[in-house]
Amino acid sequence: MATTTTDETLASAADVKLDLKGDNKFTLTKEEQLALIRVNLAEFLNPEIIENVINEGRHPRIYWGTATTGRPHCGYFVPALKIAQLLAAGCHVVILLADIHGFLDNLKAPIELVNYRAQYYQFCVTAILEAVGVPTEKLEFVLGSSYQKTPEYIMDLYKLCSVVSEHDAKKAGAEVVKQSDNAPLSGLLYPILQVLDEEYLKVDAQFGGVDQRKLFAAAKEWLPKLGYKERAHLMNPMVPGLHGAKMSSSDPDSKIDLLDAPEVVTKKIKKAEAAPKVAEGNGLLAFTEFVLLPASSLHGSGEFIVERERDGLEPLVYKDAAQMQADYQNDILTPQLLKPAVSKALNTLLAPIQAAYQANKEWRAIALKAYPEEDKKKKVKKVKDKGSRYPGGAAKDGAPAPEDGEAAGAA
Amino acid sequence: MATTTTDETLASAADVKLDLKGDNKFTLTKEEQLALIRVNLAEFLNPEIIENVINEGRHPRIYWGTATTGRPHCGYFVPALKIAQLLAAGCHVVILLADIHGFLDNLKAPIELVNYRAQYYQFCVTAILEAVGVPTEKLEFVLGSSYQKTPEYIMDLYKLCSVVSEHDAKKAGAEVVKQSDNAPLSGLLYPILQVLDEEYLKVDAQFGGVDQRKLFAAAKEWLPKLGYKERAHLMNPMVPGLHGAKMSSSDPDSKIDLLDAPEVVTKKIKKAEAAPKVAEGNGLLAFTEFVLLPASSLHGSGEFIVERERDGLEPLVYKDAAQMQADYQNDILTPQLLKPAVSKALNTLLAPIQAAYQANKEWRAIALKAYPEEDKKKKVKKVKDKGSRYPGGAAKDGAPAPEDGEAAGAA
Repeated sequence: MATTTTDETLASAADVKLDLKGDNKFTLTKEEQLALIRVNLAEFLNPEIIENVINEGRHPRIYWGTATTGRPHCGYFVPALKIAQLLAAGCHVVILLADIHGFLDNLKAPIELVNYRAQYYQFCVTAILEAVGVPTEKLEFVLGSSYQKTPEYIMDLYKLCSVVSEHDAKKAGAEVVKQSDNAPLSGLLYPILQVLDEEYLKVDAQFGGVDQRKLFAAAKEWLPKLGYKERAHLMNPMVPGLHGAKMSSSDPDSKIDLLDAPEVVTKKIKKAEAAPKVAEGNGLLAFTEFVLLPASSLHGSGEFIVERERDGLEPLVYKDAAQMQADYQNDILTPQLLKPAVSKALNTLLAPIQAAYQANKEWRAIALKAYPEEDKKKKVKKVKDKGSRYPGGAAKDGAPAPEDGEAAGAA
Repeated sequence: MATTTTDETLASAADVKLDLKGDNKFTLTKEEQLALIRVNLAEFLNPEIIENVINEGRHPRIYWGTATTGRPHCGYFVPALKIAQLLAAGCHVVILLADIHGFLDNLKAPIELVNYRAQYYQFCVTAILEAVGVPTEKLEFVLGSSYQKTPEYIMDLYKLCSVVSEHDAKKAGAEVVKQSDNAPLSGLLYPILQVLDEEYLKVDAQFGGVDQRKLFAAAKEWLPKLGYKERAHLMNPMVPGLHGAKMSSSDPDSKIDLLDAPEVVTKKIKKAEAAPKVAEGNGLLAFTEFVLLPASSLHGSGEFIVERERDGLEPLVYKDAAQMQADYQNDILTPQLLKPAVSKALNTLLAPIQAAYQANKEWRAIALKAYPEEDKKKKVKKVKDKGSRYPGGAAKDGAPAPEDGEAAGAA
């Protein structure tokens, strides 16, 4: 029944050329729309659902969820760039700001803090998307609390809990919820909520990381049990972080804040792990493939340029990841060449976001309320103690949990 | 911290004499109130909570819950008689009609059916209590759906799921929820709901069968995690059914409906298992101890009379269970003597209930809507297939699940 499109058949960024600044912004053909929706996906379940929506002349409605906890960092560029492509392809994108999840993540924090954080997330995500020049009129933010406490939703939650076994709920959350005997019961409830969200957000598809695969498979199976229709599912690959698997939440160098100054960004990237000739698991190459190249494709030359002036050579110019990886493996593209190129491109991407922040008094005020220094320190400590990213962002979005960042884009 | 009163220290029905028809109906001393609250309980956790309420001059507010599923049968007399004693002791008793649970028990049944069943339950419980002559002005019925879908309740449900481990939720429900890998997730959610109910029904104590012990222990521990106060817990012993452990939901003789005609009652009791001289596990003796004797104490002579006219002997007159059990073990009270005595006393108890039913047009109309013949047949079949009483009455009340009846009063 499920139609799965695997890596091999998915388009790469280089296959899809478009100039959003030009006149073709709203004149993509159906094939171009679909190609742009598929770009860089690791997996796409039931693409025919989206194809049918497009053939009917509607805009596919796709949701991505994130728990509003720690400050969004550069790891968020990975899902954000895919969202930018979806918007560019004419999709209506719903961003679920899972504030209840954020609240449950730290019950000691006052509820107001969570509200401020949800607003902060909204500012950040909007700014990222505007920075890559995609139209945001089809972008919609929904607070989880706006419907996850309604009688209708709750009855469906009770119902779904009655037709889904404990075993299946556990299986669905296996890769995104910490599994142990001492894990809180909410870990079994989150998959139920996330599946119901598809119905309550009235979407055609859900987008997330490939770590959501089991949950997405469960959604296909569970919603029809309540008489609701099955949705399509789009999955981003898991992208290694700047420090590979050694990401640590207590190491400030392991993540780059959206508001980090250019010299801080440069310093953090200089410290990133990047063994020569080893492309596999290289966070810088991954970030380039899944963020910098797509961003350039949406809002620039479509190229990633590596300067070699110091060596008296012509710059290396990449239009796709394959050539870049080959050059890296052959030591043509060395870590010493790659790092400043990534720093430069990332700082270029961050500049309009930081300018928007400086220009927006409201956003600046919210930032202070959402992340008072004291709370930040406490938060880092807490996550460290738990040794888990539960139930943070990663459980919802395939992006890194805000406090760590493993397996999801250089941060 | 918990103060537990065990069997040894609990009063027996014979210790508490009162004539509710007389003037002392509302003039029990504090000691008499407490003694009547304790009668026949298997266990009483934190009795000091109730003592304090009485010392403050308030009426202890106590809740008992039942899922509104199958027709209430005579097994319901066991908790009902304890409730009658609580009312007689001046307590305010809240009966939770767990309609959401009833609905979840059979998702295929229309929601209207569950509403009718909740009304039917209310008529039955009221009639039972009136039949034993207790004042019912402090009796209150609350539908689960009236608050279990509110935003406040749901946020507390989410919160409690975040601070209670899967392991602890499973442990709490171990004796009342079927435990298996394939059990629905709702089985882990029910303990959470039942604990929250104590807070939302604003009670001082919860009453249930001793099979609820683990759940009650969990309630003591969990509520303070949300900043709510710990409640007292009253537990009825588990009372064997008419057919001991061999109770079968598909055997119509194994339960006696509240509306069964006297000759049907007599026939069913005649078929009840009652090995001579074996008092242990004898459903008829148990029903006499926990229903017939307390009923007589509340609304009659306080005696249980066994006629021996046929043998030309004086009747055996019991004021407490101990003497009756001793006589049974010594074969003075034979099964042949006991059965007609139980039939007679039960029919006497049922007579005013059946008269109330006949006199109440609304109740009769509701009965037809709540249990149309067709549905009844389906229901029995369904429960048989499942091989479990989940999530029926037993999970909530220590009374038998409506469709079977094991371990909870002759039925």
